[in-house]
Amino acid sequence: MFLLNGKAADSIGLEDRGLMYGDGLFETIAVRNRQFEFWHRHIQRLLDGCRRLNIPLPDPEVLLIEARSLVENCTNAVVKIVITRGSGGRGYRPPEQSHPNRFLTAYDWPDYPPERQTQGIVATYCRNTIGINRMLAGIKHLSRLEHVMARSEWHDEAIIEGLMLDSTGHVIEGTMSNFFFVKQGQLCTPDLSTCGVAGIMRDVIQLRAQRLQIPVKVGRFITADIDIADELFFTNSLIGIWPVRQLEHKCYKIGPVTQAIMSSVQSTRLNDESHEAV
Amino acid sequence: MFLLNGKAADSIGLEDRGLMYGDGLFETIAVRNRQFEFWHRHIQRLLDGCRRLNIPLPDPEVLLIEARSLVENCTNAVVKIVITRGSGGRGYRPPEQSHPNRFLTAYDWPDYPPERQTQGIVATYCRNTIGINRMLAGIKHLSRLEHVMARSEWHDEAIIEGLMLDSTGHVIEGTMSNFFFVKQGQLCTPDLSTCGVAGIMRDVIQLRAQRLQIPVKVGRFITADIDIADELFFTNSLIGIWPVRQLEHKCYKIGPVTQAIMSSVQSTRLNDESHEAV
Repeated sequence: MFLLNGKAADSIGLEDRGLMYGDGLFETIAVRNRQFEFWHRHIQRLLDGCRRLNIPLPDPEVLLIEARSLVENCTNAVVKIVITRGSGGRGYRPPEQSHPNRFLTAYDWPDYPPERQTQGIVATYCRNTIGINRMLAGIKHLSRLEHVMARSEWHDEAIIEGLMLDSTGHVIEGTMSNFFFVKQGQLCTPDLSTCGVAGIMRDVIQLRAQRLQIPVKVGRFITADIDIADELFFTNSLIGIWPVRQLEHKCYKIGPVTQAIMSSVQSTRLNDESHEAV
Repeated sequence: MFLLNGKAADSIGLEDRGLMYGDGLFETIAVRNRQFEFWHRHIQRLLDGCRRLNIPLPDPEVLLIEARSLVENCTNAVVKIVITRGSGGRGYRPPEQSHPNRFLTAYDWPDYPPERQTQGIVATYCRNTIGINRMLAGIKHLSRLEHVMARSEWHDEAIIEGLMLDSTGHVIEGTMSNFFFVKQGQLCTPDLSTCGVAGIMRDVIQLRAQRLQIPVKVGRFITADIDIADELFFTNSLIGIWPVRQLEHKCYKIGPVTQAIMSSVQSTRLNDESHEAV
């Protein structure tokens, strides 16, 4: 079931600019133990994205009411919120006054095998790269064909995530996650000022690392940096943290920094000031 | 009115991947004097795009029947064809068996002022750039947010088109058109093997130039090349050719090469073997 602008719906107008041009934004929010995890962080990112795309802002109160109505009988679920620029304009040109479309839906909580956290996953490098675009960097927008094509590269069910580079060969993120690695006790993650999606869990992990006094480096890294890393992991709001036990032919351990971060994030997920009750 | 998978419709399922991820393709085809101009070229590009995105191919016969049904009472119009990957899959991951959605609609012929052809237009450089992505280069896909943002940069109605660079500073195309310039009698247009939309009219112009024995160079150009060019023009299937009389503060003439190409394309548009009758 979807709520489109507050009403139950299963379809949207064919002239919607989200459909025509990927002209919109989305958020995917974990609902666990009857909490919208990091709700306020997600909404902040959504509003920031709207500002950057010059889409009129949705009312956060309305979003919360609608999200609650979708999961009132759920303990665990996933809520997706989509904002498009609505219809109108001339071709790519947005209308002077946009009337955004807003829709929300709830999915079942994905039952990822717990071994992905405890034993780590196998990952691959993607051949599809991410284009550099400072104006769109960090935003979770609807023009996601690069990531779709990257995710379509492999069919081996043993491979769980793919690591994407940008068009200049810098490591950026997983197809559906952010990426961290550890080298000599330092936690490293790619700079996302030129492309990539600035994940909520990525922010949370950086904060937790600071509290744990683990040094964090946000920088530009190439595959040679990953080759000599001690630990790797992927992260997003739904999966939490998935350590990497193998990337292509190279094996990695779930080392002490990853373990410390996982345990710290686990406690945050139980209770955080940015959560909101269902 | 839209035809969605052959039936009159005004809406599409909210789980469609075109909407969710910009996962699809489109074509915009000129209908003039009861001809679908360059129909077979448009359909070829659409099918090529489907192959590259691994979307099952639409039946060209069906597309033609449906397009005809939309414009049976029109002399001039615009037909838009959209193919999405349909719904399904897990997140970005496409389903093993896609069931594409296909929809077509017809718009009124845009009555662009004829002075744009006869006197040329004023253009600007866009600050929004195009990301490099060889896997998607040339395709007219639905993930078009870069072009939407570029077109939203200016509100001055005297400026008609914006010239976009890629993230490495190379000139690529207009927000809704391809770009050509003339230098010392040579017709030049940006190489689109790393990004940009390979327009049908761009192909036609290159062929016409060959027949006119005008040398054509497809290459990588920077703004300094444009600064010293003799003539500039934008082109797409609807506008034909719009010479540029001013780009930023620099003025250009509608020179002999542009005039020869315009006149040659004009005769092609009257009758071409890739046209199809309405």
